[in-house]
Amino acid sequence: MGEELKLLGAWGSPFSRRVEIALKIKGVEYEYSEEEDILHSKSALLLKYNPVHKKVPVLVHNGKPIAESLVILEYIDETWKDNPIMPRDPHERALARFWAKFFDEKCLPALWKYCWSFGDEQEKAYEDACGVLKTLEGELKDKKFFGGNNLGFVDIAANFLGFWMGVIQEAGGFDILNPDRFPRLCRWAEGFQSCPVVKENLPPRDRLYAFFKAHFEKISRSKDAEVASRH
Amino acid sequence: MGEELKLLGAWGSPFSRRVEIALKIKGVEYEYSEEEDILHSKSALLLKYNPVHKKVPVLVHNGKPIAESLVILEYIDETWKDNPIMPRDPHERALARFWAKFFDEKCLPALWKYCWSFGDEQEKAYEDACGVLKTLEGELKDKKFFGGNNLGFVDIAANFLGFWMGVIQEAGGFDILNPDRFPRLCRWAEGFQSCPVVKENLPPRDRLYAFFKAHFEKISRSKDAEVASRH
Repeated sequence: MGEELKLLGAWGSPFSRRVEIALKIKGVEYEYSEEEDILHSKSALLLKYNPVHKKVPVLVHNGKPIAESLVILEYIDETWKDNPIMPRDPHERALARFWAKFFDEKCLPALWKYCWSFGDEQEKAYEDACGVLKTLEGELKDKKFFGGNNLGFVDIAANFLGFWMGVIQEAGGFDILNPDRFPRLCRWAEGFQSCPVVKENLPPRDRLYAFFKAHFEKISRSKDAEVASRH
Repeated sequence: MGEELKLLGAWGSPFSRRVEIALKIKGVEYEYSEEEDILHSKSALLLKYNPVHKKVPVLVHNGKPIAESLVILEYIDETWKDNPIMPRDPHERALARFWAKFFDEKCLPALWKYCWSFGDEQEKAYEDACGVLKTLEGELKDKKFFGGNNLGFVDIAANFLGFWMGVIQEAGGFDILNPDRFPRLCRWAEGFQSCPVVKENLPPRDRLYAFFKAHFEKISRSKDAEVASRH
């Protein structure tokens, strides 16, 4: 076919890793291009292929770019039909889209705010994040995956919760995603991480932990400096 | 078939109207249920069918609810296949999803912020909103619709820009969407409004205008009172 498939990604990004998991599920070969220093500078290729958002991931298929990880996941599922990641039934597809959207628009911002705020604001953020996680816990019910018996669209979309959150809460000394409070989500996260196709496509835990540990130490130092400067 | 199709909506909501336009394009019969006082109280039906967000629109098909207007549009397109609103080609579908998402996540919040902020904050919001509109203006190019020659997914998603924004800027005395600055978007908005299927599914202009006029007068009075209280 002479197909060209290239992924612009970043090793620590849950959004890039979503796309990698989907491509591995499909068994499609692709070339991976790491955005070396995504937080500080963007490559010419990234600016060319995602001029609107200037963010990874971007999937470039025969020269045509697609951006936004959930949009890419649907593209992958429509283009390579074996091993579907979306359900077939229209109502189930709608539910999958609903929960993936919920994850991006409600869950991620709530967890983010909890991890990157302080004092009263953090206490409020904790309550909000617990509320969102409770909703997801309720949706999971006794299913193995959000998609039922098999890993699917929502599970891939929820990869931040399935892996990153555990690393971040350890690195930052948080305690929100624990088995006493959210037994189903914790069981799900374990099952998620132990899927071979997921396991092979997660960032190295040590490297991610070190990254966030350094990050939180830096924040904490600047917070201390701020407090000290007031006295 | 004995099919039951019910839409919970609100007359002034662009999100509900998206769904009505799509159902009318498909020529599907449905029962419409107005949420009479959506800003102050939610019906038992709405709380039952959209417990997560408690928002209209909700489409209930044979007892099964679907929420979130873009999710509903895709459901409608997958369930009733005549008169497609999404393109067929996977890459074009991805672009349609990308732009609809851009509209909801970037354009709407930017316009909203511009219309509902004051002073320096509004000046900043104006710049941001112009940037977003410029991006859309660039994407529209010389196409009649975002979807090409026919009204499609992105056009329906952009209905706030196609109708509401003009009414709001008149009611609030704003000036952002004008033909000198955004000739293509203004031409598009005219074309959008003159599609029969759109025209029949827009809220009455007078009623919408009166609603926003009253709203902005109320805001202005409370702003004046706030300023007066400082002296």
